Amino acid sequence: MTSTDAAMEGRKAAALLEDTRSAVDPHLRAAVGTLPGAIRRVAMYHFGWQNADGSPASGQAGKAIRPALVLAAARALGGDPEAAMRAAVAVELAHNFTLLHDDVIDEDTTRRNRPTAWAVFGVPDAVITGDAMSSLALRLLAEDPHPASAHAAVRLSTCVIELCAGQQADCALEDRNPGEVTLDESLAMAMAKTGALLGCACALGALYAGAGERAVRAMDGFGREAGLAFQLIDDLIGIWGETDRTGKPVGADLAAHKKSLPVVAALTSETSAAAELAALYQGAMNTPGELRSAADAVERAGGRDWAQAAAADRMARAVQHLSRAVPAPEATGELLTLAEFVTRRTH
Amino acid sequence: MTSTDAAMEGRKAAALLEDTRSAVDPHLRAAVGTLPGAIRRVAMYHFGWQNADGSPASGQAGKAIRPALVLAAARALGGDPEAAMRAAVAVELAHNFTLLHDDVIDEDTTRRNRPTAWAVFGVPDAVITGDAMSSLALRLLAEDPHPASAHAAVRLSTCVIELCAGQQADCALEDRNPGEVTLDESLAMAMAKTGALLGCACALGALYAGAGERAVRAMDGFGREAGLAFQLIDDLIGIWGETDRTGKPVGADLAAHKKSLPVVAALTSETSAAAELAALYQGAMNTPGELRSAADAVERAGGRDWAQAAAADRMARAVQHLSRAVPAPEATGELLTLAEFVTRRTH
Repeated sequence: MTSTDAAMEGRKAAALLEDTRSAVDPHLRAAVGTLPGAIRRVAMYHFGWQNADGSPASGQAGKAIRPALVLAAARALGGDPEAAMRAAVAVELAHNFTLLHDDVIDEDTTRRNRPTAWAVFGVPDAVITGDAMSSLALRLLAEDPHPASAHAAVRLSTCVIELCAGQQADCALEDRNPGEVTLDESLAMAMAKTGALLGCACALGALYAGAGERAVRAMDGFGREAGLAFQLIDDLIGIWGETDRTGKPVGADLAAHKKSLPVVAALTSETSAAAELAALYQGAMNTPGELRSAADAVERAGGRDWAQAAAADRMARAVQHLSRAVPAPEATGELLTLAEFVTRRTH
Repeated sequence: MTSTDAAMEGRKAAALLEDTRSAVDPHLRAAVGTLPGAIRRVAMYHFGWQNADGSPASGQAGKAIRPALVLAAARALGGDPEAAMRAAVAVELAHNFTLLHDDVIDEDTTRRNRPTAWAVFGVPDAVITGDAMSSLALRLLAEDPHPASAHAAVRLSTCVIELCAGQQADCALEDRNPGEVTLDESLAMAMAKTGALLGCACALGALYAGAGERAVRAMDGFGREAGLAFQLIDDLIGIWGETDRTGKPVGADLAAHKKSLPVVAALTSETSAAAELAALYQGAMNTPGELRSAADAVERAGGRDWAQAAAADRMARAVQHLSRAVPAPEATGELLTLAEFVTRRTH
């Protein structure tokens, strides 16, 4: 792909995500509006619609990649995206429930350039709001008269359990010594924590388009592999930054001693840079100098290149799954645009 | 009711709960067995089936009141309790998910005579396990081919949101000065936090028996009022104890400065004992002497009598709802046995 093509694809993806945000947000707001007052307030803050004092805000509710995948998958399989709207909202609610709880568990204080919900409202309100959003997501599907809704609820609830397993594995990996974590374990964790929900989003779109089990599974595979590519890129951003676009401070994952995928790849590379990185991970890593040294060590140990290559490899697998789910190449455009967008974010 | 009748009713209720536990536990264990390893381990500890080290334990998984209500409500309306088993398991899972999270939020260290899950496994694992159990509950209903399952999932997910609102209100009330909390607020909180799920349990039993909306709603009302009676009794136990049967230390709610229903009734009684109690709530209340003084002040301010009378009144309302849900008096026996059991626990 030439850089002109890439720029055009980037604009297409951005437009698609913006359209999705516009289409989904009224339904998402309506769903959140059914939550009881005190919980609704925390949810509206989390989505960037309100400030901490309850005044309106015009913040970002995130990139809407998951609902965009639901709608694009439905469209790719000949379905009516409008009919899959509840599924799109349900997936977005499930995603945001996990963000609320993950921020509590990871003690993260910043998300989307603002203090996290627990930092503003306290741990109890953040946990409770996440709980309510999780049930709201499944309620939307249970209430939906669409013939696919029960099957979709099984997939989404199963996926949430997998997300929980991923978050649990993430915590367990973080508690272990850097030298003891294998790349396979880290990849399995990332698949559960991130790939599963992107796969579920695509599978739900397929279900709502009336697709058969084979296509639904292939769509799930597409989303999972694209999700892993997405996570690899996210991990790169967690080290080398892009604060303006992501709201994450530069070097944040290193400062938190996070064993992200590029870091684990570097640590297990058996290079001298790996040993340097392991030594840095024993210390504080607070200063800009220390963070730069650690990032350099990840790079020299091959962690950066590996993550870029792994992301490309996962994208290739995603495309293979997609071709099985949607035989007509001309129908895969939106899904490919979305998937390639997430792996192009650092180029 | 004579004391001989009461004793007989008590034995009937105990047998019914024991039968329910035996009937439900294999299904509950099978459901929990589908959870991913690390999460399953926390869940099995929480239910009392395993020790912290993973060795088998023969602990108590709780009184099984909620699944017993599901099955008894189904039977009362001419349904097959066996067909409602998934609903019974789902309600029990939802209940235990809230216990896991409430213990984290309230920083409670003891439940059913053992350290709470977060105290053993840490806050992250307890939060994550609760999340997974919540989704597992709704997955059981989504997977259930029974014609009532979608409606049941809507009711259960809506109920979980109400439980969240109740827990949020509880936290908010606890953060306020004792003098600022009204009895109406406290009753509304208790209805959301406790009544809602007992109502939902009865409503799900009715749904699975194929009952119409009117009977389902009346069953919900029965469970809600019985649930409030249950909470009032639980609050009395939280002050005057029964450690052996409940696993709660004597005076625990007072030591935690909890504004339970008898306490709020006492504080708002405009008696001299109310002023004494308010003064005690400003201090530490750690020693047995302080806890006794506080309990005496609640009693002298009328909080104990009020709670006993309110529990009886709620039971009367429950019985009225029940007669609307189940016109044949001979069919209400089990439900009345269960409801009266919970209000007789301190007699």
